[in-house]
Amino acid sequence: MDNEHHHHHHHQNPAPQFRDLPAVPSDGTPITIDVWRGDLIESQHAVHGAVIDSHGGVVAAWGDFEAPIYGRSAIKPLLALLLVESGAADQYKLSDREIALACASHNGEPGHVDTVKAWLGNVGLTVDDLECGPQAPSYEPALRAMYEAHEGPTRARNNCSGKHTGFLTAAKHLGFPTKGYIQYEHPLQQRLLGILEQMSGFSLTGVPRGVDGCGIPTIAFPIGHHAFAMAQLADPHHLPEARADACRRIAKAMTAEPWYVAGTNRYCTKLMEVTGAKAAIKTGAEGVYMGALPEHGLGICIKVADGAGRASEVAMGAVLRHLGVIDEAAEAKLHATLEPEIKITGRIAPGTEARF
Amino acid sequence: MDNEHHHHHHHQNPAPQFRDLPAVPSDGTPITIDVWRGDLIESQHAVHGAVIDSHGGVVAAWGDFEAPIYGRSAIKPLLALLLVESGAADQYKLSDREIALACASHNGEPGHVDTVKAWLGNVGLTVDDLECGPQAPSYEPALRAMYEAHEGPTRARNNCSGKHTGFLTAAKHLGFPTKGYIQYEHPLQQRLLGILEQMSGFSLTGVPRGVDGCGIPTIAFPIGHHAFAMAQLADPHHLPEARADACRRIAKAMTAEPWYVAGTNRYCTKLMEVTGAKAAIKTGAEGVYMGALPEHGLGICIKVADGAGRASEVAMGAVLRHLGVIDEAAEAKLHATLEPEIKITGRIAPGTEARF
Repeated sequence: MDNEHHHHHHHQNPAPQFRDLPAVPSDGTPITIDVWRGDLIESQHAVHGAVIDSHGGVVAAWGDFEAPIYGRSAIKPLLALLLVESGAADQYKLSDREIALACASHNGEPGHVDTVKAWLGNVGLTVDDLECGPQAPSYEPALRAMYEAHEGPTRARNNCSGKHTGFLTAAKHLGFPTKGYIQYEHPLQQRLLGILEQMSGFSLTGVPRGVDGCGIPTIAFPIGHHAFAMAQLADPHHLPEARADACRRIAKAMTAEPWYVAGTNRYCTKLMEVTGAKAAIKTGAEGVYMGALPEHGLGICIKVADGAGRASEVAMGAVLRHLGVIDEAAEAKLHATLEPEIKITGRIAPGTEARF
Repeated sequence: MDNEHHHHHHHQNPAPQFRDLPAVPSDGTPITIDVWRGDLIESQHAVHGAVIDSHGGVVAAWGDFEAPIYGRSAIKPLLALLLVESGAADQYKLSDREIALACASHNGEPGHVDTVKAWLGNVGLTVDDLECGPQAPSYEPALRAMYEAHEGPTRARNNCSGKHTGFLTAAKHLGFPTKGYIQYEHPLQQRLLGILEQMSGFSLTGVPRGVDGCGIPTIAFPIGHHAFAMAQLADPHHLPEARADACRRIAKAMTAEPWYVAGTNRYCTKLMEVTGAKAAIKTGAEGVYMGALPEHGLGICIKVADGAGRASEVAMGAVLRHLGVIDEAAEAKLHATLEPEIKITGRIAPGTEARF
C-alpha cells in the first residue's frame, strides 16, 4: 500500500469525523458511534434507545432501554402540555412561536430573547419572575454581540427561558402563585409530574430524582417509557380530547417554527427544516435525544451512556434514517449536518454538550 | 426511608457531581467514572490507562492499555525535548516560562499571549510565522475582554501557540525553513517523530496517523508506550546526557510555572500548584491525560474511551491519589478541584472538552 498517497486524503482535515451515518444494529446491542481522526477510531460512544408505538409496542431497541434516565430538556414538549391543555395558551393567544419556545433549549439569539420578553409582558410578568439563572448565549455571534455591547448573562438569555415562561403562564392561568414555581413541592411541578406519569405510563413515586440545570426537578424513568410518552404525543388518539389537541398543537408548533426550538445552525432546527411535520425532535443534556413522529405514530428516545451530545445527534440521525423519516433526498440536503465535523480550532461548534 | 428528607440534601445543587474520587480497580478493569445527579448515576465514563516505570515495568494498568491512541496535546512535554536538547532554548535564553508555554494548552489569557509574542520577537519572528489557526481564548474573562475590545480570534491566542513558537525556535536554531513546519514531511516533524520513537520505545513506521487540531501530525501508539515515554521524562538516567538534561529541565519548568502550562482555574495548573515538583501533568483532547513523576520515576497515561475531558481529570486525580502523589494534605487543599462540579448554568467550565 502506498502509505503516503493513502494518508494524504485523510490528512487534509484536522477535524474528527463521523464516517457515514452508522447503520443501527438489529440485534438489540447499543448503537456504536465511532469518532475518527485520520486512520484511527480515536473515541467511541455507546447509545441506548428505543422506538415505541402509541400502543406501547417496541418497534426497535438498542442496549438497555429499560434503564432509568433523566430526560432533561428532551421532555420539554411533554412539559408544555400543561400550558396548552389548561387553556393558558389560548387565554394569552400564544402563537406557534411561543409554544415552540416553551419546548426550546434556545441559542439566546435576539429573536429568542425578545420573543420571551414580549411574552412575559403579555402575561403581565417580567424577567424578574423567571427563576432560571442568568446565562450567556451559546451561539457565538450572539455571545460576541452581548460582550461588544458590554452586556452580560441574563435570565431571559437562559436557554430554558421559554420553558420557564411557559411555566409562569400556566401558573397564572391556573391561579397558582408564580413565586417558587421551580420547587418540587409547588403545585405546578406536581401537576407536571402527573402529566409525565400519564404520558409515560410509569409510576413516578419513589423514583430517583434530582435538580435539572435550570433549577427545576428532574425525575428518572426508563428510556422506553420516555419513548412511549413521545409516541403518545405523536399519536394521541387514546388520550382525552384536551390533551390530544395539546399534543397535536405542540408537535405542529415545533415543526412549524424549528428556529424557535433551538436556533441558527442547531442540529434539530436544521433537521426539522427539512423533515417538516414528520418529526418533532428535541435534544437534552447528557446525550439524551427524543422525537415524536406524527405520521408514523412513533416515539423515540436515545441516551448516550457517557453523556456526549455529539454522539446523540449522530445517533438520532441514524435512527431517523433507519425509520425512513430521512429519505435520500433529505439525506442529500442534510449531508453536512448528518456527518458533522466538530470544529476544534475555534469555539465548540453548536450542537455539542453545551446544550441542555 | 424519609424520601423527602433524604432527597433534600442532594437537591440543593443542580450541578452533577463526581461523588468522591473513585478508587482505581486493582484487577485490570477500566476505571469507571460515575456522573451523579441527585439520586441517579446519570452518565458513566470508562478510562483505560497505565503507570509504567523507567525500565518499562507495568506498575498499574486499567483496561486495554495496549490500545493505540493519539496522545494529542498530552505529548507536548515530549515534543518540547527538541527545543531544549538542540540548544535552541539556550541560544535564545528561554526561561521556565517559555519552556512551560512550549508544553502548554493555554487559556489565551493576556499573560500567555503576550509572552508568546515577546518570545517570537526575541527569535526574530512574528505571529505571521505561526501556522496554527486563529482561536479565541477558552477562559471566559479573557474571551469577554477580547470581544469588549472589539477584537477577535488570533493565532497567538490559539491554545497551542506556545508549542508552535517552540517549533519555530527549534527550526531556526537547526537551520530548517520556518515555513511549512506543521507538515508531516518537514524536517522538524520528522525529527520530532524520531524523538517520540525513542522515548516511547515503539516503532512509528506504518502506524495510524492523522492531523491534530492545530494542524500538526498526530501519530498513534499504545497507551502503555505513552506512559513509558513519560517515565523516561521523569527518570531519564538511561538517556544520553543532552536528552536527560532536557527531560529534567522540562519537568522542572512545568512544575515551576504551572500557570503557563494551562492558566487560571485549570485543573493541571491547580494540581501542580499544590503537588509542586512531584508531578508534571498534561492534558490532551479526547480524554487523554499524561504525567511524569520525577520523585517516583513513573509515567502515567490515561485515555477516556469516549473522549470526555471531565472524566480524564477525575481519573488523573484518582490515579495520583492511588500513587500517593496527592496525600491527605494535598487532597484537602484540592478538594473542590478533585471533585469538580460541572457548571451548567453558564459557559462550559474550564477543564472540559474544550481543551486540547
